[in-house]
Amino acid sequence: MTERNTSTDSPEKRAAGIAAARLVSSGMVVGLGTGSTVAYTIKELGRLVREKGLDILGVVTSYQSEMLAIEAGIKLTTLSQHPELDLAIDGADQIDSELHAIKGGGAAHTREKIVSVSAKRFVVVADESKTSTQLDKTVPVEVLPFAKELAVKKIRELGGKPHLRSAVKKDGPVITDNGNFVLDAEFGVIKDPETLALQLSAIPGVVEHGIFCNVDELYIGNKDGSVKIVTRQK
Amino acid sequence: MTERNTSTDSPEKRAAGIAAARLVSSGMVVGLGTGSTVAYTIKELGRLVREKGLDILGVVTSYQSEMLAIEAGIKLTTLSQHPELDLAIDGADQIDSELHAIKGGGAAHTREKIVSVSAKRFVVVADESKTSTQLDKTVPVEVLPFAKELAVKKIRELGGKPHLRSAVKKDGPVITDNGNFVLDAEFGVIKDPETLALQLSAIPGVVEHGIFCNVDELYIGNKDGSVKIVTRQK
Amino acid sequence: MTERNTSTDSPEKRAAGIAAARLVSSGMVVGLGTGSTVAYTIKELGRLVREKGLDILGVVTSYQSEMLAIEAGIKLTTLSQHPELDLAIDGADQIDSELHAIKGGGAAHTREKIVSVSAKRFVVVADESKTSTQLDKTVPVEVLPFAKELAVKKIRELGGKPHLRSAVKKDGPVITDNGNFVLDAEFGVIKDPETLALQLSAIPGVVEHGIFCNVDELYIGNKDGSVKIVTRQK
Amino acid sequence: MTERNTSTDSPEKRAAGIAAARLVSSGMVVGLGTGSTVAYTIKELGRLVREKGLDILGVVTSYQSEMLAIEAGIKLTTLSQHPELDLAIDGADQIDSELHAIKGGGAAHTREKIVSVSAKRFVVVADESKTSTQLDKTVPVEVLPFAKELAVKKIRELGGKPHLRSAVKKDGPVITDNGNFVLDAEFGVIKDPETLALQLSAIPGVVEHGIFCNVDELYIGNKDGSVKIVTRQK
Repeated sequence: MTERNTSTDSPEKRAAGIAAARLVSSGMVVGLGTGSTVAYTIKELGRLVREKGLDILGVVTSYQSEMLAIEAGIKLTTLSQHPELDLAIDGADQIDSELHAIKGGGAAHTREKIVSVSAKRFVVVADESKTSTQLDKTVPVEVLPFAKELAVKKIRELGGKPHLRSAVKKDGPVITDNGNFVLDAEFGVIKDPETLALQLSAIPGVVEHGIFCNVDELYIGNKDGSVKIVTRQK
Repeated sequence: MTERNTSTDSPEKRAAGIAAARLVSSGMVVGLGTGSTVAYTIKELGRLVREKGLDILGVVTSYQSEMLAIEAGIKLTTLSQHPELDLAIDGADQIDSELHAIKGGGAAHTREKIVSVSAKRFVVVADESKTSTQLDKTVPVEVLPFAKELAVKKIRELGGKPHLRSAVKKDGPVITDNGNFVLDAEFGVIKDPETLALQLSAIPGVVEHGIFCNVDELYIGNKDGSVKIVTRQK
Repeated sequence: MTERNTSTDSPEKRAAGIAAARLVSSGMVVGLGTGSTVAYTIKELGRLVREKGLDILGVVTSYQSEMLAIEAGIKLTTLSQHPELDLAIDGADQIDSELHAIKGGGAAHTREKIVSVSAKRFVVVADESKTSTQLDKTVPVEVLPFAKELAVKKIRELGGKPHLRSAVKKDGPVITDNGNFVLDAEFGVIKDPETLALQLSAIPGVVEHGIFCNVDELYIGNKDGSVKIVTRQK
Repeated sequence: MTERNTSTDSPEKRAAGIAAARLVSSGMVVGLGTGSTVAYTIKELGRLVREKGLDILGVVTSYQSEMLAIEAGIKLTTLSQHPELDLAIDGADQIDSELHAIKGGGAAHTREKIVSVSAKRFVVVADESKTSTQLDKTVPVEVLPFAKELAVKKIRELGGKPHLRSAVKKDGPVITDNGNFVLDAEFGVIKDPETLALQLSAIPGVVEHGIFCNVDELYIGNKDGSVKIVTRQK
């Protein structure tokens, strides 16, 4: 995994991120995802709040998205106060043609999943490089530190190769915003993401894994600023 | 739910707890459960360590069992250092004729499940009052505070009635040893515990629920000191 | 310590709680404390929001005050978004004539202190029974579980008798909203609360203790509905 | 701050780390610090356990030191079971001529401080580059996420410039093993470390800062393998 906090501008991420911001209208409560693509959405929503009088409430998915949203001037609320969101927008590490996604490169997938499942509509923003016919990237699995060895064993029994994610700016493993570890598990091509999702959830000590089966729409940004929209077949 | 920390002596719990302690021999690494029945096991193991030279290592499932084990003089280790346990002994809130159990009245079921699944053999100690043809007690579900409302909604969709467990010696809800909430969910008679277990695990934000499908043996203590042993049919 | 969640009505708590609510005006960001007295304030603020169009934002100090505030219909924000509060209102376990207070019977004193110190004005609401010439109640000290034994030793060196607070609705100790333990420490009459506050803060592993030296005003409610106000001499 | 997990060999760190391992004898319970210098101590202790029959128990200060100690084959125990340690060995980011130290570059200083204060003797291992007449490096301060803005404000009032430490392998801030943030605070030359230590501890929401005033001995390793020992004047 390479460094995540890139500061370089990306026209394709920008295109997707800004297009999704247009889905937001006054009165909405919106889930705000984590990562470099949805950061464009958050900044654009902030601009619309300041310049166009957009009146919304945001629910954040991580400390990072909280900081970005506060900087952008978006009023924040909580899932406790607004358990049903009108819309959630987030990025993805990889997404297949049936809109199954892998998330969690930023270690924020637990709250991201809770927020996205709490929303009436869940839109993923991405660039072309994230799309794939089938999922084959590593699946981040958040586990209680107490259960690390058990989760490693159980993931292996499912055919995966788990690696404890190490931190760079602290000694030892990455700790999530919830205080847990992340196991990045290689499964090769994942033929049946929905079954694997259930199997991973059933492992004792797994808090949440990065397979998402609830994406409603995908916004794919292109370098020329155009955006392709894919809607899930129901 | 009534108060948990009873100090009154119970001959039937004592019978079961002490009988299970006899399964432990020197060299073993043993998972030590939480609650009033397995407390007899822990005290008996401590006696055997002190008086008979029993040489074992314990892995605890809660702060309570840690304190009891230290008081008893049992040397403790961790799941990280000993990921596979020879034996785990624990209590249960209710257990059916096929050895499906409900645990979590003491809010310790997450670590209890991780420990019991890490053991080669998992023995439950109980008195007759805990046995039932079918499970029908409330199922404790540990959830991330962030996911409380979503979990409430999803448990209702599964036919359950969830109640946030309130604390007595602090304001607000009970917080588990892992920092989370407990929803006590009524499902009436649970006809298919294994399916419900999978459904509860799949809810985003559920850390662990109290349905256990991995009990190998049940020790039922009687008032006369006798113990009935039930072994799972495989 | 007796059970905390009383449902019986208290005219004196009500008097103090409601009087403090009158300090709140539209546009304010208000810290909302935890406990049975400030619960009257929260309910009254909710009534003013619904019936009088009071337009405020609340910052909560615990899961309990969050639930009460949401039920009351008060819009919530966070300390991250509003680091400086106009006012904080909270209860106390005991308060002396110089407005030093002991808090933490509800195990919420860590967030309560952070919120009250973040406010321009900190008002405590109480009934007469909480006032005392000198502080002599037990001081709740929130400690990392990892540091329990060290904190016990250090508190004893300071002349205190610490007792780990046990839970009733879970096995083992009370866990705070932050995931830590509470040591209730008896010091007898505390002659110099400010020095003891510094000494307790300096103990490694102490997250926060219950001595508050930042109370600006005290509202003491009487049974006849009248309220006595005491202001700190600066 | 540069990347912490270096794999390159360092003769001076090795010299100090191994020399300190010689202080350990059978029967001891030893606190095992975190970082690249004390990693040599842990590996050497593991070698002595395997090859020389050294019989000790270790108490770890982080997930990293836990993993290293398990790999090395050192039997681990806990502070709960052994509240008083015979010896603690750890590294430092900077240490002055009076043996005041700054620790926390690895974000493990909270548990490191608890462990070192629990030990009868605390030895720091370092290379020459860590020594300084006066402390002037950034002081890591672990804070509750809830208290971030308040801690930033209070550190500024003390003359410091705090920076929230950002993560590389997750989005947003570094999270410590205890689930908290780290503020790296620049104070320039710290003339009175003991006073600053008390001031930082007194900030609500500060869990623990990286100033250590309890070092008993310093082992400074040189490239030629020699070690200089400095003992604190009492």
